[in-house]
Amino acid sequence: MSEGAKLPAEFSLIARHFRPLAGEGALGLSDDAALLDPPAGQQLVLAADAMVAGVHFLPDDPPETIGRKLMRVNLSDLAAMGAKPLAYLMTVALPPGTDTAWLDAFTAGMAEDQARFGLSVLGGDTVSTPGPLTLSLTIIGTVPPGKALLRRGARVGDELWVSGSIGDGALGLRAARGALPDDGYLAGRYRLPEPRVDLGIALRGVARAAMDVSDGLAQDCGHLCRLAGCSAEIAVQDVPLSPAARAALEADPALLPLILSGGDDYELLFAAAPGDAARVVEAGLAARTPVTRIGLFTEGPADVTLRDAKGGVFSLPRGGWSHF
Amino acid sequence: MSEGAKLPAEFSLIARHFRPLAGEGALGLSDDAALLDPPAGQQLVLAADAMVAGVHFLPDDPPETIGRKLMRVNLSDLAAMGAKPLAYLMTVALPPGTDTAWLDAFTAGMAEDQARFGLSVLGGDTVSTPGPLTLSLTIIGTVPPGKALLRRGARVGDELWVSGSIGDGALGLRAARGALPDDGYLAGRYRLPEPRVDLGIALRGVARAAMDVSDGLAQDCGHLCRLAGCSAEIAVQDVPLSPAARAALEADPALLPLILSGGDDYELLFAAAPGDAARVVEAGLAARTPVTRIGLFTEGPADVTLRDAKGGVFSLPRGGWSHF
Repeated sequence: MSEGAKLPAEFSLIARHFRPLAGEGALGLSDDAALLDPPAGQQLVLAADAMVAGVHFLPDDPPETIGRKLMRVNLSDLAAMGAKPLAYLMTVALPPGTDTAWLDAFTAGMAEDQARFGLSVLGGDTVSTPGPLTLSLTIIGTVPPGKALLRRGARVGDELWVSGSIGDGALGLRAARGALPDDGYLAGRYRLPEPRVDLGIALRGVARAAMDVSDGLAQDCGHLCRLAGCSAEIAVQDVPLSPAARAALEADPALLPLILSGGDDYELLFAAAPGDAARVVEAGLAARTPVTRIGLFTEGPADVTLRDAKGGVFSLPRGGWSHF
Repeated sequence: MSEGAKLPAEFSLIARHFRPLAGEGALGLSDDAALLDPPAGQQLVLAADAMVAGVHFLPDDPPETIGRKLMRVNLSDLAAMGAKPLAYLMTVALPPGTDTAWLDAFTAGMAEDQARFGLSVLGGDTVSTPGPLTLSLTIIGTVPPGKALLRRGARVGDELWVSGSIGDGALGLRAARGALPDDGYLAGRYRLPEPRVDLGIALRGVARAAMDVSDGLAQDCGHLCRLAGCSAEIAVQDVPLSPAARAALEADPALLPLILSGGDDYELLFAAAPGDAARVVEAGLAARTPVTRIGLFTEGPADVTLRDAKGGVFSLPRGGWSHF
């Protein structure tokens, strides 16, 4: 027999599509594992997320956005910890009929974001599935020891801040499905969220607690409350909206609960001491990322109260999004 | 609204099933990411693998073996690098109807292997899928700098060694499907391969090149040849078989190609200098793992020649297993 001549198809798939993404230590993706020299004097920050076609993205989303979305969702986890991106590993379960053009576009998108966010692939696996396209990505970042932003740590009296704008992701999913008028901005925010990596790094030593908004603003704020053992109040009129989201809300005020609890925002939600507002604003400027104060942590049970412009309590029909 | 009272189902699923598996740095799986202090003076070794029900395991395999198989497949990658297990992250895409009893058994299996192999979970994600159960696992190990076993490095004249026994995995899949008589040994080897972690560590500084046998003995030996730029000869009669595999082969000699190229063995295949046989045997004894010399690296193109007992060339109908 002659093994050398005929490389298996999986082998050439990796060589063509994934090897160009490989970084130092990946050993060209041709060994059993990667070797990584951990940056001296740093802690590693690690997160993993999975996405399934039809659940987390639309099966006909452009292939160049799909891998990037997963990378950005993971980058958002690093941002929420104040970590600097370093590398990632990815597994891809491909349905029958996935062709080379699809994979070319998929990996071209990954390459673009790798360059932008400064990370490279260390390893992974490509397998076949009779089911929908399923991706899993493990991301690795670094943070100086003790400087990671954690979800716990908010205190009564702290101010609640959020980056960027809220609601675009959930509205964008509707727009991508054709159920909401859109010039492409909202659908684009759904397909390619903007991980706030620079802001997370700038907030080291400033934010007392932080997380990224993935399940919905109200629900995720509830997580910060639970870990802090206190309540929070959010002033709904202060929640930052993009011009597109504001226009959609004006056209249909019934969209407000979706905006406040729809999720897929990937903005940073964080607590800062009341005297630190200037430092927060400075961090936002340094990171070229808008930051908005939207509420307060208060004494009380681990609840979130949404207040409308008149000080009344605004109730949500449901608390957020859960896969189960 | 009251976010605090009603925890989302995904939250409680993680709390019940996965938090007990979490190790130091996992932050109770309740933060955006994990924090890991990399062990001082060590390189990290990282690998990721995915498994899909119906492709990599049987949909009715016992749940307590499914996660462990994926962990062991990844541990085998660490073993092939001579690395010591440290931690892992896992994503799980669950089909509709996955119940608590299934998850209890699944995570109980993971817990058993975590304890045995000395690692813990750092993070992950649980999502729903309309398709088959799909798992992805990223494993992290450590190795002293420069001591990792790599696939490249074999030289002409080196001896080819393999651990344990070959063919059980491929025969075990047939047995698990009821297509081969089995007292349970072969199916057990398919469902729970034995990663040769201790042997990999013992072979640091002894093996010149190493990999684990996942695609099939013949095909994987071809990888070592390609990276070394030489040929290899394997003496078929020297390939170690378990008593169950030997009995199956005696009953049906047509099973030989499946044994030699069926894959799913997760044994270590490695090269050692001709004078180092005693050191290899010593490493096997230290790791309580059988090691067998099965061939030689020779001058020539990157081909593998299988020789039968009379010195003739044994030809395989196909070269191994590829998902594409």
